[in-house]
Amino acid sequence: MAGGSGLRFWPASRAHRPKQLLSISSDRPLVVEALERLAPVIGPVRSGRQLIVAGAQHRDQLLEVCPELTEGQLVIEPCPRNTAPCVALAALHIAQRDPEAVMIISPADHHVAYQEAFTQAILRAVEGARRGALVTLGVSPNRPETGYGYIELAGEIEGGGERLSPAGGGEVGARTRVARFVEKPSSEVAQRYLESGRYLWNSGVFVMKVSRLFEELQRQLPAHWEALERIRESMGTPAYGRALSEQFSSMRSISLDYGVMEGASEVEVVPVSLGWSDVGHWAALRELYPADSQGNVCVGDGHICLDAQDNVIYSVGSRAPQVALLGVQGLVVAHSPEALLICKVDESQRVREVVEALKARGDKHLL
Amino acid sequence: MAGGSGLRFWPASRAHRPKQLLSISSDRPLVVEALERLAPVIGPVRSGRQLIVAGAQHRDQLLEVCPELTEGQLVIEPCPRNTAPCVALAALHIAQRDPEAVMIISPADHHVAYQEAFTQAILRAVEGARRGALVTLGVSPNRPETGYGYIELAGEIEGGGERLSPAGGGEVGARTRVARFVEKPSSEVAQRYLESGRYLWNSGVFVMKVSRLFEELQRQLPAHWEALERIRESMGTPAYGRALSEQFSSMRSISLDYGVMEGASEVEVVPVSLGWSDVGHWAALRELYPADSQGNVCVGDGHICLDAQDNVIYSVGSRAPQVALLGVQGLVVAHSPEALLICKVDESQRVREVVEALKARGDKHLL
Repeated sequence: MAGGSGLRFWPASRAHRPKQLLSISSDRPLVVEALERLAPVIGPVRSGRQLIVAGAQHRDQLLEVCPELTEGQLVIEPCPRNTAPCVALAALHIAQRDPEAVMIISPADHHVAYQEAFTQAILRAVEGARRGALVTLGVSPNRPETGYGYIELAGEIEGGGERLSPAGGGEVGARTRVARFVEKPSSEVAQRYLESGRYLWNSGVFVMKVSRLFEELQRQLPAHWEALERIRESMGTPAYGRALSEQFSSMRSISLDYGVMEGASEVEVVPVSLGWSDVGHWAALRELYPADSQGNVCVGDGHICLDAQDNVIYSVGSRAPQVALLGVQGLVVAHSPEALLICKVDESQRVREVVEALKARGDKHLL
Repeated sequence: MAGGSGLRFWPASRAHRPKQLLSISSDRPLVVEALERLAPVIGPVRSGRQLIVAGAQHRDQLLEVCPELTEGQLVIEPCPRNTAPCVALAALHIAQRDPEAVMIISPADHHVAYQEAFTQAILRAVEGARRGALVTLGVSPNRPETGYGYIELAGEIEGGGERLSPAGGGEVGARTRVARFVEKPSSEVAQRYLESGRYLWNSGVFVMKVSRLFEELQRQLPAHWEALERIRESMGTPAYGRALSEQFSSMRSISLDYGVMEGASEVEVVPVSLGWSDVGHWAALRELYPADSQGNVCVGDGHICLDAQDNVIYSVGSRAPQVALLGVQGLVVAHSPEALLICKVDESQRVREVVEALKARGDKHLL
């Protein structure tokens, strides 16, 4: 799923250069990281077993950053309709090849530190999916994060699953039934979730058979299913383009979590400690990079922090300026060739306000 | 006097691009502003009546930013020796044309808002100089500044001089005898100076006859005078270059204020309110530019301050990024293509620490 706009990484992310195309957590774009992360399970990109769903405006850049990708592996969304329609559209394409295929659904713009645990967790999820379950990866929380959705655990399916250690790196728990999905909590509630040990972060990674997804769509989202049927009928015919644009845009925006997972039968989660981040906004760089002894995280070469604590610097590339911080605390300094953002680390989610201000004054070249 | 290095404007100012060559207070380099400021009294640059004293490493850039300047108007200092040797060297060159000439001495890197008052003040100072006085311009203080030297007033020379109004812009007082020059004061002392009404800021602008300067040098700085005599003997001969480099570097570093003015006879000051600034460090931009309603001073196009107060932004040029400040207070954000400085406005004098750190780690390309 590579349809996001990711303006929260402004000025690095832009309408024409969304977050998944940026190299934020490593020297490779996040979408390339996502493809590489799945390769141990489903093979390299040239195997053709990956589909990327994205907007038409990002087609060329995706082909550029993933040179092994063929045009046929790109599924173009005519418009953004959240994850349920996005996943369903990809599933239509997969079903043409194999209606009983197991589908691994992943955001294109997240980061995972522990590759081996991710691979093991996916393999465990695939087991569940083969038996007909809709399986998600649930990340063992290490802080009362209010920026993520949570998954409440019910009983374990297999015996022997151990509770993951809170500071663990690379552990995979037993497949467990899901009691419910919950929205981003308040900080008090998040603290209770953390202490209870019964809640995991919703990673946005799902594994299921295409046929099971279709069953659930048909039952839970019948209007969507009808539109999808029209699209399916047109596939492989000259009518596809028009059917897609008409039917896809007619679908209501709804997430897979709430449109499908929440109300589905046989929903399971594989608990895992992944060093996972949704790379949600600039402050997330503190999770992705080691800090210096003063708590500063510096991405890019040659930055200087003098009497400066707990700052996040992002200025990368051969033509990016070196940043010198002197006597300042808790700032984000994020550079792009056209614009420079300075805000407080704790307020880096407010960057949307800058984007809104630019829109309001008609500064389109910075959007 | 264009010999300064001005590293306090790092990263805009650099060893190869000192402050006087930068466009800080307007769209023209400070040295060009200084030449234009004097033109109403001494004529345009092509009149040949201006001499610029500078280091050899800045010769080409000076000729570039002042295209009317001829090579003959550039007096090269072999090394920096503070202002007394600098002024004396220029005086030797002037004396060759006219030993009784009145010389106007000005820093190349200051800013003056009120041109007309400056012209009137210089003309009034020239009157005093013609009568044999060593005259300085003293700026009427509007705040208890601790970053400037002060001049204490003695009695007025002509009647009718009025005390300048503290917030005045463009007033010129009567020529007044100087009681003494004082170094940068503590803030308590600066407050007393301000309240007394008997102290002016030392502007670094001096007006005197070349012959009177020579008298004072001979009397107060005899070793310097001896070296200057050697240089004078060599002028116009092939021996000049060697004599200059040997004799000039043999002189002790000393300022004109303390080496000559402090101990001279007939020292006068013309009080003036000029909208003057020595453009000493980044915080000085607050004196040079109007602030927005939130107290932010923005130099360069298109910057955005959202819920941000009392910041100073300097990012100029067609390829400089637009700066977006969100929720931050009292910061300096200064951009150059190679480096970016962020510090507190109140601590902008600490930028030397960054320069020292760069030296220490051998980062020569940023010096």
